[in-house]
Amino acid sequence: MGKRTEYCGKISRDLLGQEIVLKGWVQKRRDLGDLIFIDLRDREGVVQIVFNPTFSKEALAIAEGIRSEFVLEIKGRVVERKEAVVNKNIATGELEIEAYDVTVLNTSKTPPFYIEDGVAVSDDKRMQYRYLDLRRPEMTQNMILRHQMTKSIRHYLDDQNFIDTETPYLTKSTPEGARDYLVPSRVHPGHFYALPQSPQLFKQLLMGAGFDRYYQIVRCFRDEDLRGDRQPEFTQIDIETSFLEPEEIQAFTEELLAKVLKDTKGVELTLPFQQMGYDEAISRYGSDKPDVRFGLELVDVSELVKESSFKVFSGAIENGGAVKAINAKGSASNYSRKDIDALGEFVSVYGAKGLAWLKVEEDGLKGPIAKFFKEDAEALIEKMEAEAGDLLLFVADKKSVVHDSLGALRSKLGKELGLIDESRYAFLWIVDWPLLEYDDAAERYTAAHHPFTMPKESDIGLLETDPGKVYAQAYDIILNGYELGGGSIRIHKRDLQEKMFKALGFSKEEAEEQFGFLLDALEYGFPPHGGIALGLDRFAMLLAGKENIREVIAFPKNGKATDPLTEAPSLVSEAQLSELSIHTTKIED
Amino acid sequence: MGKRTEYCGKISRDLLGQEIVLKGWVQKRRDLGDLIFIDLRDREGVVQIVFNPTFSKEALAIAEGIRSEFVLEIKGRVVERKEAVVNKNIATGELEIEAYDVTVLNTSKTPPFYIEDGVAVSDDKRMQYRYLDLRRPEMTQNMILRHQMTKSIRHYLDDQNFIDTETPYLTKSTPEGARDYLVPSRVHPGHFYALPQSPQLFKQLLMGAGFDRYYQIVRCFRDEDLRGDRQPEFTQIDIETSFLEPEEIQAFTEELLAKVLKDTKGVELTLPFQQMGYDEAISRYGSDKPDVRFGLELVDVSELVKESSFKVFSGAIENGGAVKAINAKGSASNYSRKDIDALGEFVSVYGAKGLAWLKVEEDGLKGPIAKFFKEDAEALIEKMEAEAGDLLLFVADKKSVVHDSLGALRSKLGKELGLIDESRYAFLWIVDWPLLEYDDAAERYTAAHHPFTMPKESDIGLLETDPGKVYAQAYDIILNGYELGGGSIRIHKRDLQEKMFKALGFSKEEAEEQFGFLLDALEYGFPPHGGIALGLDRFAMLLAGKENIREVIAFPKNGKATDPLTEAPSLVSEAQLSELSIHTTKIED
Repeated sequence: MGKRTEYCGKISRDLLGQEIVLKGWVQKRRDLGDLIFIDLRDREGVVQIVFNPTFSKEALAIAEGIRSEFVLEIKGRVVERKEAVVNKNIATGELEIEAYDVTVLNTSKTPPFYIEDGVAVSDDKRMQYRYLDLRRPEMTQNMILRHQMTKSIRHYLDDQNFIDTETPYLTKSTPEGARDYLVPSRVHPGHFYALPQSPQLFKQLLMGAGFDRYYQIVRCFRDEDLRGDRQPEFTQIDIETSFLEPEEIQAFTEELLAKVLKDTKGVELTLPFQQMGYDEAISRYGSDKPDVRFGLELVDVSELVKESSFKVFSGAIENGGAVKAINAKGSASNYSRKDIDALGEFVSVYGAKGLAWLKVEEDGLKGPIAKFFKEDAEALIEKMEAEAGDLLLFVADKKSVVHDSLGALRSKLGKELGLIDESRYAFLWIVDWPLLEYDDAAERYTAAHHPFTMPKESDIGLLETDPGKVYAQAYDIILNGYELGGGSIRIHKRDLQEKMFKALGFSKEEAEEQFGFLLDALEYGFPPHGGIALGLDRFAMLLAGKENIREVIAFPKNGKATDPLTEAPSLVSEAQLSELSIHTTKIED
Repeated sequence: MGKRTEYCGKISRDLLGQEIVLKGWVQKRRDLGDLIFIDLRDREGVVQIVFNPTFSKEALAIAEGIRSEFVLEIKGRVVERKEAVVNKNIATGELEIEAYDVTVLNTSKTPPFYIEDGVAVSDDKRMQYRYLDLRRPEMTQNMILRHQMTKSIRHYLDDQNFIDTETPYLTKSTPEGARDYLVPSRVHPGHFYALPQSPQLFKQLLMGAGFDRYYQIVRCFRDEDLRGDRQPEFTQIDIETSFLEPEEIQAFTEELLAKVLKDTKGVELTLPFQQMGYDEAISRYGSDKPDVRFGLELVDVSELVKESSFKVFSGAIENGGAVKAINAKGSASNYSRKDIDALGEFVSVYGAKGLAWLKVEEDGLKGPIAKFFKEDAEALIEKMEAEAGDLLLFVADKKSVVHDSLGALRSKLGKELGLIDESRYAFLWIVDWPLLEYDDAAERYTAAHHPFTMPKESDIGLLETDPGKVYAQAYDIILNGYELGGGSIRIHKRDLQEKMFKALGFSKEEAEEQFGFLLDALEYGFPPHGGIALGLDRFAMLLAGKENIREVIAFPKNGKATDPLTEAPSLVSEAQLSELSIHTTKIED
């Protein structure tokens, strides 16, 4: 019959009375004998098709054999529906198509689940039949949203003179805290490529090449233990620039994000974004990626309780720890003793040995530990800005445990108490990061971001004397409590890079072995440079209003790093392994 | 000093008299004592900086210590050069910068080669110092051209409602004629992912998902023996559509290519492109990717010489072969007997047992075999459209050898005789491909394109009875003798796909094992679909006027699949291998 003239979902009043050709899938069919209705679906939406003997006996006869998910070509005329049967749930609901010609382009078995939003089916089944899952309008829309985002990102960066440059996927392992995926070389037996955890060094080399402004929307690979928002492969918006200060990099990043929000969600963000020092974020929110859409801030009561007769509190402080508390405003009556015990269980996962609590009533503090705070009750109430009906929750421990546990508790309570305005996009910069973190297990410093991060100019002297005190020229961008991305100014001189490797415990030989090519490169006129990398999957997930990046990836892996559709990874032939000069020491059942 | 106000290469008369800030690399320095000239380079070009004591004594003093490839920040004023010292070789040659402030942002050792176009240095050295090699203006421009191309491609496809969708890089092996790169799974010992040779099956699944129009600029991986225009990883412009005929897919591909040529080279192509059947291309040019910018077509003289007393000719025809010839117009005097012997050596690589020749003189044919053609001389001259001064070159062999050897000879002669208009972009569609090729060694048919290609409707019946006779709904796009890309309509029903696998010699079990997920998918309402894939590296190489795709890849591998910069692939630790449950059976020295 010929070319499609319209998408189903785009049929509008402008087409009233016109002949059109549609191609799409049968969403639903209702057979009233001499009258058959079909909802025909394509990626843009759904429209109702009507068959009856007046329009075409032949078409009606064919329509009788049609089932769900058959692929049809329809020729017909756009007409208005009667007022009584207008369907306000779909964009085309005031119209329908009188069909006088139909061709079945393909048949379909009954799908294993309904092709509709909010379907109740296991994630693995959805992935096994991903081609059906992606037909569901919300999934199609998620993928279109993702494309609109990358389009918007590219337009912005293209307009700003960035050069989109591809970097290799078969490359050398760069230790950045996660395991590498390795690829055995056939040509060089016993040797391996690594899939990149990020193109960090290549983008720095491109700055050395004078490219000035680079970007790439690029796949990255980390063989990590999987969690809800992690995948073996993920996509990064990777950016690097020369000659810019952190503030300039942050400024264009804000413009970029604002454009994406505007183009895809019609949301106007207010620039510049809020900035917060790392130390302040940890202190106030117990997190380096706080969700600032709600309060429940951590209050340090250490001063107040350091001489308390409640030994759990005073003891923690004596041991160099702290006591902090959250005021769950007006929640005293919502949490029973049992509920609070459950919160105690929750924080124990983060290492907290207990969760102390007090309820504020008209006549003072109540609860098992209230007796210890008779004298300090008023001061405590004032410090916590508490009033009758509030629930105060305390953790006393070493500082990292206090922050981790109360930070997590804060997030949990924020959701439970409905304090979060889900319509808001709260962007936040976390700045003034420490350069290094001490790894107790390894008994050495590790890079808080990566080993190429530039220290604050004023702290460079400390790198050799007191490395734990050095701050970095680094900045993370947070959206609604998720780390959307991070960046830094990089080291551009060999001597400083060598000092950094030394601070990280590399011997001269190890540094040379792993990063000799970078150290050599830094001797040939590298410009001052820095950049940022943003997680596209997580960004798309947040704009799609989802809680797992699988919802915005066309063909994701499941929690066991397996693709239920293709069944990758799979066994391969001995001949293939032999050509690669490897064999396997263990085969899983 | 602050922000860069301009790129060096963009300094224009509009800025005369203004104060500017530049950041760039020292291309060249001339020290005339109280007067120092520096050519400062950034990615956009070069401008001359002048230091003298009048502008600033301090700046002059610093300039004395400056060497090639130092990174500078310059503050100064744009002035006109004196007429006598205008440099017409650079865009900014009528201007210069009076510098009154300079900061050395970084120093540089003397580079191992000059940072200029056309430098004579080995490819491996260029790759080892790729950050310096990419500073050379032609390389920077190649990378910018590549970005302009992808930008142009994306704009076209975005405007045409294509959805840019990412497909997995960690996936299952799909046999498409080349070796897979494998990635051992840590979570599933003994199991492997494969890096995709192309996203062929995923793009088909996206059509099954109703995406209708998909594209992706995507990395592909083939562990093949390397040649000049091959790399272990390469980039494909990957496109798939539903419900379109081959002609419609070809039409938008032409528009896409025309837009790229216009946007990047300012060239207006004439649409539609020339089309040629596969059989005709082989017959006339001895190639399925002919360069049609010049003649030298193959002429079939089999009929004429089948009863010749020259047994090499008549014998070849008796054995089912053919005799074809090229007329190298006017070249008789350019090729000595020794030169022609060398051509004979050349064609022997393609299996030809010999290269017969005749020179045409005023009084007839000359050469060692002329005596066999006394009677047929006139007919031969007429058939070859020959005249005095022409050189006729013959191959008599089985047909495939005749075509391969004369096809290669034609390309060689085209270049040697200067017949090629290098300014032309000659696009050509090769259509009407055979579906299958017989593999003599394996004693079975293999897919000429891939196993998912749709046969011509009229030939489907032959698939089970005479598969070698089946033609495909396939089309390749050729540019200047290079295969730029290829595509086809795909099979969208299970029963036909099963017949195809059977014709390729798969047992039912093998087909199920390797492609079960596709066969299953085809039962759930797959639309008619088809697409195309274009090689971005090769396309960029041709637009850049280069002969190796390494010239348009930022960080390529060398001929041994090694990156001389990072030295990937490399040895890895036993601990890494042990975690992956593999060990190596051989270590290269």
